[in-house]
Amino acid sequence: MTPTSQDLRVAVVGAGMMGADHVARITSTISGARVVAVVDPDTARATAAAATAPGAVTAADFEEALATTEIDAVIIATPGFLHEAVLMPALERGLAILCEKPLTTDEAASLRVLEAEQKLDRPHIQVGFMRRFDQGYQDLRALVASGDNGALLALHCAHRNATTPPSYSEEMLILDSVIHEIDAVPFIAGEPIVAVEVKKPRRNSLAPDGLRDPQFVLLETASGTLAVVEINVNIQFGYQVTTDAVFESGVASIGRETGLQLTSAGRAGVAVPPSFKERFGAAYDTQVQRWVDAAHRGTIDGPSAWDGYLASVVATAGVEAQKSGRRVEVDYAMAKPAFYDLDARADAVPSEA
Amino acid sequence: MTPTSQDLRVAVVGAGMMGADHVARITSTISGARVVAVVDPDTARATAAAATAPGAVTAADFEEALATTEIDAVIIATPGFLHEAVLMPALERGLAILCEKPLTTDEAASLRVLEAEQKLDRPHIQVGFMRRFDQGYQDLRALVASGDNGALLALHCAHRNATTPPSYSEEMLILDSVIHEIDAVPFIAGEPIVAVEVKKPRRNSLAPDGLRDPQFVLLETASGTLAVVEINVNIQFGYQVTTDAVFESGVASIGRETGLQLTSAGRAGVAVPPSFKERFGAAYDTQVQRWVDAAHRGTIDGPSAWDGYLASVVATAGVEAQKSGRRVEVDYAMAKPAFYDLDARADAVPSEA
Amino acid sequence: MTPTSQDLRVAVVGAGMMGADHVARITSTISGARVVAVVDPDTARATAAAATAPGAVTAADFEEALATTEIDAVIIATPGFLHEAVLMPALERGLAILCEKPLTTDEAASLRVLEAEQKLDRPHIQVGFMRRFDQGYQDLRALVASGDNGALLALHCAHRNATTPPSYSEEMLILDSVIHEIDAVPFIAGEPIVAVEVKKPRRNSLAPDGLRDPQFVLLETASGTLAVVEINVNIQFGYQVTTDAVFESGVASIGRETGLQLTSAGRAGVAVPPSFKERFGAAYDTQVQRWVDAAHRGTIDGPSAWDGYLASVVATAGVEAQKSGRRVEVDYAMAKPAFYDLDARADAVPSEA
Amino acid sequence: MTPTSQDLRVAVVGAGMMGADHVARITSTISGARVVAVVDPDTARATAAAATAPGAVTAADFEEALATTEIDAVIIATPGFLHEAVLMPALERGLAILCEKPLTTDEAASLRVLEAEQKLDRPHIQVGFMRRFDQGYQDLRALVASGDNGALLALHCAHRNATTPPSYSEEMLILDSVIHEIDAVPFIAGEPIVAVEVKKPRRNSLAPDGLRDPQFVLLETASGTLAVVEINVNIQFGYQVTTDAVFESGVASIGRETGLQLTSAGRAGVAVPPSFKERFGAAYDTQVQRWVDAAHRGTIDGPSAWDGYLASVVATAGVEAQKSGRRVEVDYAMAKPAFYDLDARADAVPSEA
Repeated sequence: MTPTSQDLRVAVVGAGMMGADHVARITSTISGARVVAVVDPDTARATAAAATAPGAVTAADFEEALATTEIDAVIIATPGFLHEAVLMPALERGLAILCEKPLTTDEAASLRVLEAEQKLDRPHIQVGFMRRFDQGYQDLRALVASGDNGALLALHCAHRNATTPPSYSEEMLILDSVIHEIDAVPFIAGEPIVAVEVKKPRRNSLAPDGLRDPQFVLLETASGTLAVVEINVNIQFGYQVTTDAVFESGVASIGRETGLQLTSAGRAGVAVPPSFKERFGAAYDTQVQRWVDAAHRGTIDGPSAWDGYLASVVATAGVEAQKSGRRVEVDYAMAKPAFYDLDARADAVPSEA
Repeated sequence: MTPTSQDLRVAVVGAGMMGADHVARITSTISGARVVAVVDPDTARATAAAATAPGAVTAADFEEALATTEIDAVIIATPGFLHEAVLMPALERGLAILCEKPLTTDEAASLRVLEAEQKLDRPHIQVGFMRRFDQGYQDLRALVASGDNGALLALHCAHRNATTPPSYSEEMLILDSVIHEIDAVPFIAGEPIVAVEVKKPRRNSLAPDGLRDPQFVLLETASGTLAVVEINVNIQFGYQVTTDAVFESGVASIGRETGLQLTSAGRAGVAVPPSFKERFGAAYDTQVQRWVDAAHRGTIDGPSAWDGYLASVVATAGVEAQKSGRRVEVDYAMAKPAFYDLDARADAVPSEA
Repeated sequence: MTPTSQDLRVAVVGAGMMGADHVARITSTISGARVVAVVDPDTARATAAAATAPGAVTAADFEEALATTEIDAVIIATPGFLHEAVLMPALERGLAILCEKPLTTDEAASLRVLEAEQKLDRPHIQVGFMRRFDQGYQDLRALVASGDNGALLALHCAHRNATTPPSYSEEMLILDSVIHEIDAVPFIAGEPIVAVEVKKPRRNSLAPDGLRDPQFVLLETASGTLAVVEINVNIQFGYQVTTDAVFESGVASIGRETGLQLTSAGRAGVAVPPSFKERFGAAYDTQVQRWVDAAHRGTIDGPSAWDGYLASVVATAGVEAQKSGRRVEVDYAMAKPAFYDLDARADAVPSEA
Repeated sequence: MTPTSQDLRVAVVGAGMMGADHVARITSTISGARVVAVVDPDTARATAAAATAPGAVTAADFEEALATTEIDAVIIATPGFLHEAVLMPALERGLAILCEKPLTTDEAASLRVLEAEQKLDRPHIQVGFMRRFDQGYQDLRALVASGDNGALLALHCAHRNATTPPSYSEEMLILDSVIHEIDAVPFIAGEPIVAVEVKKPRRNSLAPDGLRDPQFVLLETASGTLAVVEINVNIQFGYQVTTDAVFESGVASIGRETGLQLTSAGRAGVAVPPSFKERFGAAYDTQVQRWVDAAHRGTIDGPSAWDGYLASVVATAGVEAQKSGRRVEVDYAMAKPAFYDLDARADAVPSEA
């Protein structure tokens, strides 16, 4: 795709909740892009989502969409095990790609994707770790980088959901939920995770039968920063994601609830958002806008496929730690290819501020 | 202009700080619109602003822009006394109009504008009271409308700026600053202001010579709700706009600082935004996006010229109150024309959620 | 009374809620004092209160108590119109006196009390404006005195009670409730109140029939500091007393709710205290302990009868302002006698830190 | 000692910072007690402390004090290894005892003290875990007991000091600092600690040479509640002790900074207390007042010697966990004697509310 002043023509693959959201977002909120195709084997779902995007066609699969209309870019919002099947043809055509997490569901598939991408001139895949676009995470990363309060020593992370469906399994605590902290911790700390351990406190009796919830996931980074992640997905009261960062001479916190403060009936306080949509809505908007802007420049502006690969390796170690009760060291199969050193590349373009 | 799926072609008139901001916003953030012309007698300023908008032309005056390029809509960001000269030809051509506050600088001009607009099929002018698009103001208005805490009895408003330039006069406390509360109070309360009084506490010695700052402006609404507005524009520490609403059985507050909480060097707290741009940046974005979306539907979605007129009548009374030290009743020259009852019109379209 | 290392022998006059509280406080919380007599014409009430104080006798009137037992000090907790009848004999005997506000209920009586007290060697009466002993008020006064943020320009005070009994009259808004701010504002500002004005916003329909509640009381100090006091005594949700102080280069706030922060059921926040007892309990304890300690040294350590007199003059002006709707200047009948310049006296002892 | 209405005659043993504080507290703040002896081998220190307590004698050792003056009660504020030598004679004489933590410095000594105490009619030793008297800890314990938010699942505790002296050793992280959480966690959870593990994040380069600081201490209770304690004693900015309690359907937090909120110089926030004295000053006062009140009733009202023993067993396990890097199960040598079931005893008196 060549950068132009025209709108980016986007296909959205997967018309479930996330995909439908992206269709609406591109259409109503994002500048410089429009949805030209909505892809889903469930025709009713595809049609419903496409109805919100004037001029968009529907297709049962990605190949059909590619054959039907001109496409510059693709947002992949299918279940993770189907990602590779869209990533590969998208890479072949050199499309701009925004792929919801995880990149793929196993390391071998991730390595195949990385290999295919490296045949291109530069990275084309951005992975949907939207927290990187939340103002709090940006501020915290900047504070670490500034060194103003000395080195980062530890992180306390809490990730709380109101409830989970019966289908939610213990592995998903890591693969679906902590995966966000697995990406966010290196983003904040500026260095990779090297070991994982899982501790299991008393079980919440309100969790679905058989789910051992909450759990504490300990993530260690290369220099020894210890992140204690409370993953707690049946807390009932709403959605809450907070991080307290412990520095050598300070503590910084993000994610406390804000908004209208109401004093009534003997209480003073604020509302808790019901779900991730309210909590991270602005981050999703920013993520997609910056991805669109970067696509116009022929690049990405956010986590790359390499970041997606790193997260999946740590997540695999996390599941092993969860099962074994032991501390598991993370074994990355390869060093970071220069191809993914976005800032160091000769053709570097300004990335995130 | 007919609603289309094409981008709204916007001329921005006035390329000062506000105008240049709007050019950048339309270009980078807003979906469904693009800047096609930047108008300013200061050619250098027009050229600089236009440089950020691919394809935009520059013009020394609005007529020249209209003659040069196809225009669907106009954002007016000139000094207020120049508004009428743009509003009139824009109305004649039936353009969608977003006019920065104030609508005009005197009541006679406002009445001429209202008269001209009513020759059209429906309102075309939206006035840039951006606070209506701030989440806090929206939430507070919704809380009043809900009646959950009984009737609204009083408001405490604080409007604090770091500093003012030497050119800032005492009248501008009302006309430039409190004008926002003059619009926001009826927006929150759901009824018009009927009287104004001004109290002058001890002067801030850090204010420019001759400026009596801060002042307290008391605004009374039709049912007796009393808003006490502290206008305080040399408070040094940053920009702060807060409202505490007193209900029959509750108190609600908006505008407290949020963001990263830092504990260091014996203090725990958050940063104060330096200016209105950081504080209300999201509100500006929302305002313009909703105006663009409404323009595609052939309507407006925010304060109308009628609201602009009301605000200017109250502001005039406020200056009189400021000078006289007396309580001044607001005398509206006319009742609200049915033309401006947006929700009651047969051709009503959904307005703000 | 001569300072000794023995316990101060205290008579508590008035065994209503406040008096009974003082009996319990002296007995259980305060060091260096014990209750030796409880005085109330209602024998049952006196007996009940005395039961919590080992060794205390009861009496129907103060003279009887004086005749029955050795008394060093008296706490006056009767209705205000009965204060003079206890103050006079207490002064004659040179007792240490803690008199609940108001000093007396009319200016003439206050002047008689001042005259009687000045026949003694030094002030013996401390008036129960307990807010002066609240940490927040102390901190705010210290901040003003420090000049760290420039001069004090304005105060926003809110004084909110859950409900009032049917007997509570409009005058009592000033005489019983705002009286606390009437003392606190000069305490914080370091200078007297010179004018009062009252504004009446929309009436709370939950207030008892005939009570015009809330009201806004504007208090001006000598240098022009303007305090806007919201008095609001049927707010339903609990008891809330806050002050925001506006300086030339800063704003300081006291009185926000604290305590256990609970996130549950979609809300995050803290409890609001139900009444003044919880809110100012520690201040009452500190007030009485410091009064007892000062009595052992033969002096007072808190607001004097002079402060009580000043407050009653302002309150009288406040009621006039409330009735007339006009700004009323405060006319103090006399200048402060040197007798009451506690810090300037040759026999000065350290007063409050 | 027989309960009387006379003041409790207290000997304070140890006239260092803590001891001198207790002398001043008993003298100036506490009702129903006075200091009659100050004991310290350092005569100058004893004399200085005694000077603040009218009528108190000094003594070089406890036996001398016992021989010199009538003593009802003793506060032990010596270094821990000297506690047993005071506890034993105090128990023999049946004195009321308030012993600063730790009860003793080794388990054998603790068992000897427990044995000696059980020869008396009822517990005489109260151990100085003052946090139990902090309002926040009380509220949190009450919330757990209420079951309002379901079972307690986990605790996040942070214990941060500004700096430590060079003499502060790694073991002291557990024995001197985490010892407070070791007592507080069972107090809050209502059940004992059964295992301890220590994790060591990146070292703070501002800590004294050789001190591995901060550390994370994981405490597990009988039902599986997991407390993650961040002990962090060179954080520079001040003193901060917080707890976040995770329930099945809620989260409760205590210990956030409160007080005057100041907005100035681009920041809005509150001060952080410099040391434990400011943070827990009120808790110390409450602790001592309640101990004095209980002594008048012939009992204790707070943590007993048994609680002191439990804490020392867990602390010993904690040091082993710190050294080994392994999870260490806590092995209590004996079950709780009925003697220490304060609420179940036939002679039970009301203990803490």
